[in-house]
Amino acid sequence: MGSATIFFWLQLPNVTKSNGLTLTIFGIITLIATYNYIRIFNSWSEAFTVASKGGGDYAVQLTGAPFNDGHRYQDWLLTVPLLLIEMILVMKLPQQETVSLIWKLSLASALRVALGYPGEIQDDLSVRWFWWCLAMIPFSYVVFTLAAGLAEATSKQPSPAAASLASAVRYLTMLSWCTYPFVYMVKSVGLAGPAATMYEQVGYVLADVLAMPVFGVLIWGIVAEKSAVEGSGKLLPN
Amino acid sequence: MGSATIFFWLQLPNVTKSNGLTLTIFGIITLIATYNYIRIFNSWSEAFTVASKGGGDYAVQLTGAPFNDGHRYQDWLLTVPLLLIEMILVMKLPQQETVSLIWKLSLASALRVALGYPGEIQDDLSVRWFWWCLAMIPFSYVVFTLAAGLAEATSKQPSPAAASLASAVRYLTMLSWCTYPFVYMVKSVGLAGPAATMYEQVGYVLADVLAMPVFGVLIWGIVAEKSAVEGSGKLLPN
Repeated sequence: MGSATIFFWLQLPNVTKSNGLTLTIFGIITLIATYNYIRIFNSWSEAFTVASKGGGDYAVQLTGAPFNDGHRYQDWLLTVPLLLIEMILVMKLPQQETVSLIWKLSLASALRVALGYPGEIQDDLSVRWFWWCLAMIPFSYVVFTLAAGLAEATSKQPSPAAASLASAVRYLTMLSWCTYPFVYMVKSVGLAGPAATMYEQVGYVLADVLAMPVFGVLIWGIVAEKSAVEGSGKLLPN
Repeated sequence: MGSATIFFWLQLPNVTKSNGLTLTIFGIITLIATYNYIRIFNSWSEAFTVASKGGGDYAVQLTGAPFNDGHRYQDWLLTVPLLLIEMILVMKLPQQETVSLIWKLSLASALRVALGYPGEIQDDLSVRWFWWCLAMIPFSYVVFTLAAGLAEATSKQPSPAAASLASAVRYLTMLSWCTYPFVYMVKSVGLAGPAATMYEQVGYVLADVLAMPVFGVLIWGIVAEKSAVEGSGKLLPN
């Protein structure tokens, strides 16, 4: 995440000004994720300890301090709306439509994250499912709006290279966004204890890596290609 | 807050020099807030602990260390006058009027923060109300002066896009400024204990997010639009 931030910002002098805004915001997204992953790392280290059982064997034990996954939701509350703003900026719609989409999608996606959290910290399965269903309402609205908008944006790209990247962005977005509700379900289907927590954390980390640095590099490819077409010189190798 | 600072400073090369001053100061405002929020976070962590009650249940307990909200007032003592200076600079009044307004409003707003603090750290309700009333005198002076000045500034913007942003700035300022006295009242109406402290903190955080990063992005929109009109090239996408 931190490396992605440095990459996006070091590329800033190489793109045109309006494309630079896209890279600036993407570097901020991965910076917020860097900060929150350090907090998650520290909380994880405080919650578990590795104790010697003698004879060179070790066992992982709970320290009694709870693992605080709230940092993950604090991260998403900021980064998910910012990721949507990035996608809307890349679509290059008329200004009025851009502003209206930014308001609607960023509020809906923040609402989705906020509705997911009360379920995430529950052990009662029916309460978990209740908040999952509520969060799926703004989630579905955002995904369907994006699917339609991105299809249109793909057809409007200025060059075949940009169009093929925009198409990759579209499928990656759908894939990574639809991963989260399934990972959330890990604990809702009755898996419990440290193993469930571990699977859930691995799932969220994989989804975040797709949604942030991998997605960001594709967006960088698009803005680099667009800057080249707009005349600031060729950036992508070949 | 930290992300907002980076955003404003990374946008510096894209605006004209006089508009760059506005962005520089705004990055300093959110930087001061970042520093103080780290101090508040640490003080909060020291004041509360999460202890296991066995069986996977946890309880939040007081550690005995007091939660020090003084960092919030130390933050406001610097950031509130700076926020007012930002608004006065955006108004683009004649130089003499600008200087006189900066002195009057920044001293009045610092006085308001200083008068609020002795009440904030009191448990006696009548003493809380006494300081609240005193702080409302400079507060009202600042809000009425701003309301009048911003109405005039809105009508003087160089383009319809800048005028619509200036109008949003005006309403957001009134909304966020008027939130603080109400949040202060949470404890004055007799709510007490950890719940009251939590509601108060959530209220102040929401008001600060509106008054600093959200407000700052609107100000950035205005200076980007003004720089475009003044000829440094189009900045906002579309």
